[in-house]
Amino acid sequence: MSSDVSESHDTTARLLITCPDKPGIVAAVSTFFFNHGANITALDQYSTDPEGGTFFTRLEFQTPHLNIGKSVLMKAFSETVGKRYDMDWRITYAADVKKVVLLVSKHDHALLELLWRWSRGELAADISMVISNHEDLRESVEGFGLPFHHVPVAKDDKPAAEQQVLTLIEDQADLVVLARYMQVLSESFVSRFENQIINIHHSFLPAFVGADPYQQAYDKGVKIIGATSHYVTSELDMGPIIDQSILRVSHRDTVKTLREKGKDIERNVLARAVRCHLEDRIIVHGNKTIVFD
Amino acid sequence: MSSDVSESHDTTARLLITCPDKPGIVAAVSTFFFNHGANITALDQYSTDPEGGTFFTRLEFQTPHLNIGKSVLMKAFSETVGKRYDMDWRITYAADVKKVVLLVSKHDHALLELLWRWSRGELAADISMVISNHEDLRESVEGFGLPFHHVPVAKDDKPAAEQQVLTLIEDQADLVVLARYMQVLSESFVSRFENQIINIHHSFLPAFVGADPYQQAYDKGVKIIGATSHYVTSELDMGPIIDQSILRVSHRDTVKTLREKGKDIERNVLARAVRCHLEDRIIVHGNKTIVFD
Amino acid sequence: MSSDVSESHDTTARLLITCPDKPGIVAAVSTFFFNHGANITALDQYSTDPEGGTFFTRLEFQTPHLNIGKSVLMKAFSETVGKRYDMDWRITYAADVKKVVLLVSKHDHALLELLWRWSRGELAADISMVISNHEDLRESVEGFGLPFHHVPVAKDDKPAAEQQVLTLIEDQADLVVLARYMQVLSESFVSRFENQIINIHHSFLPAFVGADPYQQAYDKGVKIIGATSHYVTSELDMGPIIDQSILRVSHRDTVKTLREKGKDIERNVLARAVRCHLEDRIIVHGNKTIVFD
Amino acid sequence: MSSDVSESHDTTARLLITCPDKPGIVAAVSTFFFNHGANITALDQYSTDPEGGTFFTRLEFQTPHLNIGKSVLMKAFSETVGKRYDMDWRITYAADVKKVVLLVSKHDHALLELLWRWSRGELAADISMVISNHEDLRESVEGFGLPFHHVPVAKDDKPAAEQQVLTLIEDQADLVVLARYMQVLSESFVSRFENQIINIHHSFLPAFVGADPYQQAYDKGVKIIGATSHYVTSELDMGPIIDQSILRVSHRDTVKTLREKGKDIERNVLARAVRCHLEDRIIVHGNKTIVFD
Repeated sequence: MSSDVSESHDTTARLLITCPDKPGIVAAVSTFFFNHGANITALDQYSTDPEGGTFFTRLEFQTPHLNIGKSVLMKAFSETVGKRYDMDWRITYAADVKKVVLLVSKHDHALLELLWRWSRGELAADISMVISNHEDLRESVEGFGLPFHHVPVAKDDKPAAEQQVLTLIEDQADLVVLARYMQVLSESFVSRFENQIINIHHSFLPAFVGADPYQQAYDKGVKIIGATSHYVTSELDMGPIIDQSILRVSHRDTVKTLREKGKDIERNVLARAVRCHLEDRIIVHGNKTIVFD
Repeated sequence: MSSDVSESHDTTARLLITCPDKPGIVAAVSTFFFNHGANITALDQYSTDPEGGTFFTRLEFQTPHLNIGKSVLMKAFSETVGKRYDMDWRITYAADVKKVVLLVSKHDHALLELLWRWSRGELAADISMVISNHEDLRESVEGFGLPFHHVPVAKDDKPAAEQQVLTLIEDQADLVVLARYMQVLSESFVSRFENQIINIHHSFLPAFVGADPYQQAYDKGVKIIGATSHYVTSELDMGPIIDQSILRVSHRDTVKTLREKGKDIERNVLARAVRCHLEDRIIVHGNKTIVFD
Repeated sequence: MSSDVSESHDTTARLLITCPDKPGIVAAVSTFFFNHGANITALDQYSTDPEGGTFFTRLEFQTPHLNIGKSVLMKAFSETVGKRYDMDWRITYAADVKKVVLLVSKHDHALLELLWRWSRGELAADISMVISNHEDLRESVEGFGLPFHHVPVAKDDKPAAEQQVLTLIEDQADLVVLARYMQVLSESFVSRFENQIINIHHSFLPAFVGADPYQQAYDKGVKIIGATSHYVTSELDMGPIIDQSILRVSHRDTVKTLREKGKDIERNVLARAVRCHLEDRIIVHGNKTIVFD
Repeated sequence: MSSDVSESHDTTARLLITCPDKPGIVAAVSTFFFNHGANITALDQYSTDPEGGTFFTRLEFQTPHLNIGKSVLMKAFSETVGKRYDMDWRITYAADVKKVVLLVSKHDHALLELLWRWSRGELAADISMVISNHEDLRESVEGFGLPFHHVPVAKDDKPAAEQQVLTLIEDQADLVVLARYMQVLSESFVSRFENQIINIHHSFLPAFVGADPYQQAYDKGVKIIGATSHYVTSELDMGPIIDQSILRVSHRDTVKTLREKGKDIERNVLARAVRCHLEDRIIVHGNKTIVFD
């Protein structure tokens, strides 16, 4: 996974394709790009079944020697290749840096991990703002030179708070990251950002769905704890899993030390998922993800 | 964890204690052993809470310079220390090698791992026999010089098969290992061998309880698969967890490759659990284990 | 990594290419195969530098609908694509199962791991024979129905033994695996099987080259031990690394327990390397490997 | 490992012992503490050899019910137990929080990890100051409310800079942490802080000693990179290893991505080592560490 944000900025583009698998797809795609002066610098593919399955591919190509403009390229690809193979496809340009909104409650570890990596150039994101239902992290966020918005959530009027969040992020979010945001989003909010909301859940899903997974893990006496990053769907903690990681624990761990130790995997697993999303490495297919990393 | 079976055979003994935590326990125990010429060579302890919690400890001591015999030692310990601190305790001698019965169905990987480690002296066990509901593995087992018993399980008369197993292992099992034995044992069988039956479940419990966990993992799209060794209780796949391990997988994995790859963690996780049990490293407390390794 | 030996047997072929990177390679290759009725079912590529670097790719394609024969395909590929892009390439057929010779001394763990996996269909190999400088493992090997040859190595006449090995394996080895074979092979032997000899070294190379790496690791007080599989070159333990794995250890470990524990990673790391080689997933480039897994 | 700094602050004390192994040590020590009203809440021990080896132990005990004062306790222990068993021992109190000085150059990741954990109460340290040979990290450090000192190192007068550092930290450092400080310390500096300087080296030592280990790892083509925390001795990168961790890499990684990815393990491995030191979990013995964690 390239982390060289600055260099890739200007010249790299990515193509993601989902389509019925049949012979000739790679030949058609690669010939198209060759004919138009785009050098393919990375290519990954996967098929659920070469005979009648679904085909997925991710290409990285360089745009400096393109012999046609962006919009013409899109049109030409659609006409020449996309329609012929019944493709669901999209082309994105690294130079069009994605706008990201971060939502957080009180825990700072997942948020700070993202902000650190971003400040060091490891995440190619244009962070629009951080929104929290608490004031606690204002100073940390503003220290990074980012806008911080406090949107308290009243128990008896959650929709109002959510509406306020929506108003704030209107057109400012290609990606919404829930960096330990402890509020459940409404179905309408979620459907507004399909496959564009990433959450970190502090357990090895599907074990320990819902509240206080470390307490659940402690009660069960597991010898390993986990963290899971996933796209948010209307069903709580059940969206397509992007990445998971684990940590060995023992009988000596209390709920408190589990929470403490778990932070380390939570922040790494969230950061990896966000990076993969920003670099267009993820295709959602049904309730699963294809991650080309 | 010592794997030097032959040398430890004759001279090592182990003491496991569970009791209410209060000051002076370690002093009382260690003074008792010092007074009787037993050199403590390993000591591990854990307390759920120093104030009013439960205290657990495991000692290894050497017996060559003991100034009293085994049975006198037991009696003296009970009188001098055990009763005073309201201890649940047991002393075992490495020289009294545990009798082990292995139950298996058709998959050979977990079984062979155990037999191989045993044949190299890594597991201090006296393997009485292998019992299977299929004939498939007879040759492999007999190649290790071990008795193999085929006890088919008729769908309409499972109790008969279980009774046959019970008759075979009567007095031959300090430990029963289900090395991918695909039959559910009855509550009466399980209660007969409390904390003496170890199972390997091919998932990261409590995720994917029950049948075909690899299919469940595939359907869910997890990025990590797991294996869990646990003591068997009357509730399916819910007994105290001894050890767990995991493996990263990806969208490329099929149910078939998950099964294939999972074998590697299943056999390691089972082997570690069996070794810990044989070396008296495990104390069961409620629905959890304390593992001193 | 597909482990489905039986199914892939008949229909899968693989193409490995190394060539100077320039635009159009993927288009040329994929169009060639499409034109000849070969469906590409896997494609992986890597370039050291898109501008003037070296390009590597591995394709898997299905042969049932090929409209030309094997030898014609090879010739056509060479004429149409290979020469034009100055390619170093090879096509192999899964149906042409590779002949493998295993060399071993006294330690059985690495050898048995390979034989087990092979016997379960996990390794698509035609194991010609096992050769050892000791008699110890004859029974184990013959139990798998394989020829075992004892070729003792006299200290004062190593060349004679090596010649005897060479005579035995003449034309029987597409791959030679040193499964803990404790003899150093001569430069002439090694050059006879360039990139066709895989060794397992029981350390995290380049740390602890040479004799008794576990003793070296113990003396140094490392907290992690490792194992490394690599192709054998004339320089001891310095050939291109294929795979590595590690295990956490502690101050409690003795040289003896390091040796014991290390076996588990040695056998896994060797098995993975052998599988990658058998499935033509490895390209050697200078002193490094590109592993498409 | 307890991370509950605030609660353990007042009441926990730790005893570390190194002495010749002989029967009766645990009995003597535990009886001593019991007699003086100190409840032992953790006990770990290790012996290189029960017959004539060296014995190490770490005890945690609670001080609220002590029937004698600190200095009397020390004297009494020395008289009653320490001398009798020829012990090298020390008792420390969690309430006497250790003073720590952090040295850093330009890379911020290791430093920020420590500051972040410290600010959340995960590291029981009294951080006196951060010293750097560059100005770059002043703002980050001062943002945590900590003094930052810039001590540039002139190529032709390193001793002067080192003297300046010494003057700054005089009496302010129970522990010096080199959080990617790219200057080699003189032998006299090192001997002034024996077993009190912790360094993070960005490789799996003893592989890749010295400059630019990621370049070395890249050139060698390893499949795993590592990080090592160790006490600093006069021999560069050769002091006793405290902790190590690794990360899988592949042929796709460049020196640049290795550096990027390596940061994650560097900061974790350093943070663990610092925590173990602060909690008196490490005994140095020859060129190795015993880490009771």
